Amino acid sequence: MPHLDLPSFYRRYIDCLNARDLDRLGEFVHADVEYNGNRIGLPSYRAMLQGNYHDMPDLRFQIRLPVADAATVACRLHFDCRPVGRFLDLEVAGRRVSFSENVFYQFEDGRIRTVWSLIDKAAIAEQLAHTA
Amino acid sequence: MPHLDLPSFYRRYIDCLNARDLDRLGEFVHADVEYNGNRIGLPSYRAMLQGNYHDMPDLRFQIRLPVADAATVACRLHFDCRPVGRFLDLEVAGRRVSFSENVFYQFEDGRIRTVWSLIDKAAIAEQLAHTA
Repeated sequence: MPHLDLPSFYRRYIDCLNARDLDRLGEFVHADVEYNGNRIGLPSYRAMLQGNYHDMPDLRFQIRLPVADAATVACRLHFDCRPVGRFLDLEVAGRRVSFSENVFYQFEDGRIRTVWSLIDKAAIAEQLAHTA
Repeated sequence: MPHLDLPSFYRRYIDCLNARDLDRLGEFVHADVEYNGNRIGLPSYRAMLQGNYHDMPDLRFQIRLPVADAATVACRLHFDCRPVGRFLDLEVAGRRVSFSENVFYQFEDGRIRTVWSLIDKAAIAEQLAHTA
């Protein structure tokens, strides 16, 4: 594949997510994208993001610790938002929570082909235990 | 700091963990190491590993997806083991589980200074739900 400047490409991908410009998602994400071991494809990946926007109306992706080599990006993402209902099986119900995601992206044909994501659910549960 | 070949350094660190050669841990880990936001220091980091070896006698760290730039290593680690009792608040009790860890390491003075780790607890819970 032609040389990709992955750190720059990744920032544009996150900008696209924060702009909620999902019509452009295919510029960044492969048609056969896999998410946590499941080949969900671009339409389901887009639907997952639409679900995130619905569940977290103030969702914003913040890049905290990006690492890239020639074919992979890893990033620690930070979130600070108020999920309206349940999130990750936790009853958040509009309370403000902040949490991180440690995520790896492998590239193919100049697009994100494989995503391995883990979200710090324990941090959210702990914050909920300390708020009314 | 002098130039470090981080991918090679990281493989030697993981070899050290798999050899359980914790007398050498200070070659790889900074005296003031921070783990998930807490400055625990080298002795507590060593004690944490000793606890892991005790709780998972067949613990072995497998590097699956390493990514490195000049100052950071990110890695997806894989584990396949039989924790003897409880692990991450789950009653594993000797059953075989396989799971991943998405972990980031920041370096200072040629050693691991900051670790941000997330373990896929949900994968373990799901495996336990399907075994006697």
